Parts: sequence; C-alpha cells; structure tokens
Amino acid sequence: MLEIGSMNLDSQWVVGFVDGEGCFYVGINSHPDMITGFQVLPEFTVVQHERDIQVLHALKQFFGCGVVRQNHADRQCFRVRKLEDLREKIIPFFHKHPLKTRKSVDFHTFCRIVNLMTQSEHLTRQGLDHIKALAETMNRKGINSY
Amino acid sequence: MLEIGSMNLDSQWVVGFVDGEGCFYVGINSHPDMITGFQVLPEFTVVQHERDIQVLHALKQFFGCGVVRQNHADRQCFRVRKLEDLREKIIPFFHKHPLKTRKSVDFHTFCRIVNLMTQSEHLTRQGLDHIKALAETMNRKGINSY
Repeated sequence: MLEIGSMNLDSQWVVGFVDGEGCFYVGINSHPDMITGFQVLPEFTVVQHERDIQVLHALKQFFGCGVVRQNHADRQCFRVRKLEDLREKIIPFFHKHPLKTRKSVDFHTFCRIVNLMTQSEHLTRQGLDHIKALAETMNRKGINSY
Repeated sequence: MLEIGSMNLDSQWVVGFVDGEGCFYVGINSHPDMITGFQVLPEFTVVQHERDIQVLHALKQFFGCGVVRQNHADRQCFRVRKLEDLREKIIPFFHKHPLKTRKSVDFHTFCRIVNLMTQSEHLTRQGLDHIKALAETMNRKGINSY
C-alpha cells in the first residue's frame, strides 16, 4: 500500500489496472554497434491520457523504478526499461500477483526473454533468433496467437 | 472474493480493471413513446477482446447482474443497464471502493443522473434538460472538461 496525497494503490488494484492498460513489449532494433547487429529492448509500459498522469507517478513510486514521460500527443507513459528493474521489481511482482487476462501470456514470454538476456543469449546470433521468434508472438490480439 | 474456475477476482482488482477499461455512459435517445420524446439510458460497460471473455463473465458473477454480449467485431462487452442493478449493486460498490483515475468524475456524474431518474426527473422537460447537460460533460478526454 502506497499513499501519494489522497491516492492509495494496493497490489490488486495495480494488477487490475495493468490487466487493462499495461503492456509488456520487446523491441528488437537494428544497432550497428552490437555484435549481432541488433539491440533487444524489453519494456513494461502503462499509457494514460495526461489527465491521469498522477496515476502514472503513483505506479512509479509503487514499483520504485521507471520514468514518467510524454508518449505522444496528450498521452503520458510510465515506462520501465532497465533490465535490473524488470528482473528484480516488475517480474517478481507479477509472479506474486498474477494477471487475470490473457496479457499473462505476454508476461510469461516477456519473462523468458528477460531470462535469456540475463544469460547474455541476446548477444549471440542463435540466441537473438530465439528471442525474435518469442517476441513475434507477443501483443497479438488474435485468439489464434495463443 | 469470487472464484470462477481458476479466476479469483477481488474488489481492488475490479476497481483497477474498471479504472482502465470500464465506462459509465448515459445515452439519451429520441423515443416517441416517452412524454418528453427522449429516453435516458444509463449503462456501465467493460469491453474486451473476445479472447478475454472469461474476465467479463467473472465480472458478471462478481456484481451479480448484467449481461455479456458481443460489442462489435471481435469485441465482447459486460453491460449493466437495469436501473435497479445500477442503483443497488454497481453504484454502492464504487462508492465503497473508489476509482483512482479521473473516471471517478464520470462516475459521480453518472450517480447524479441515476439519482435524478430515481426521482423520475427524466420524465419532465426540465429534468431531462438537466440530465442532458450533465451527460454532455461525461467521457471527455480533454483536461478542460474537468
């Protein structure tokens, strides 16, 4: 339980809100300085209209990591990209407090990718191909993707 | 706490999910059979991709009212329209467990309209105008609307 002004967040509220609004995403971008030619960027984000920016700051304090940034136009975003924070704060929280929607499938794929990165698999061609294949299954709305 | 198969919903999860995905809406439609020429239709809805239809059924059981229906295309909807259910089940729940986002402003306007309807104000021209003015302030994303 965290208090910010008049805002109390508890764990189950956070799970419900993330089931609705959260996103576990893995970007794979070309990057000439990397051995494989690609950079793997896992991130956890929650986007809201700017009128609810205080909820994003409350999430930042709740998790004790991440940043609040403008997303696009009148949207703001709470975002965690640091691998250590994902591994030590975000992932353990959602293991302890499971998501109820099919977003949990994306979360588990996200965990597998973060684990592979912890083992430096993203720095090898074979590991990168594995991560790419996993990332391609994520954030699809079609029922056949599960 | 409610168990459906492997799905447990608790109150704070429901609040968080509705903060993200719920909608309090008041439709005002022309209706020649009504004294004022208009019908006022308040409704509480949660829309999800069909892959998460089990969450909508869990909400239906949690609140003990409403229906799950196709919304459009691959979207499904949990919807409560019955005035008695809104007044006796939905509204008391969110009074007891407040929303954290600015959706709470819409909720309070929704409550005012349901109260006016309980007093049959929607059946008079003056009452209907009051309800129309309130309804027009709802579900706006712009920060100036609050």
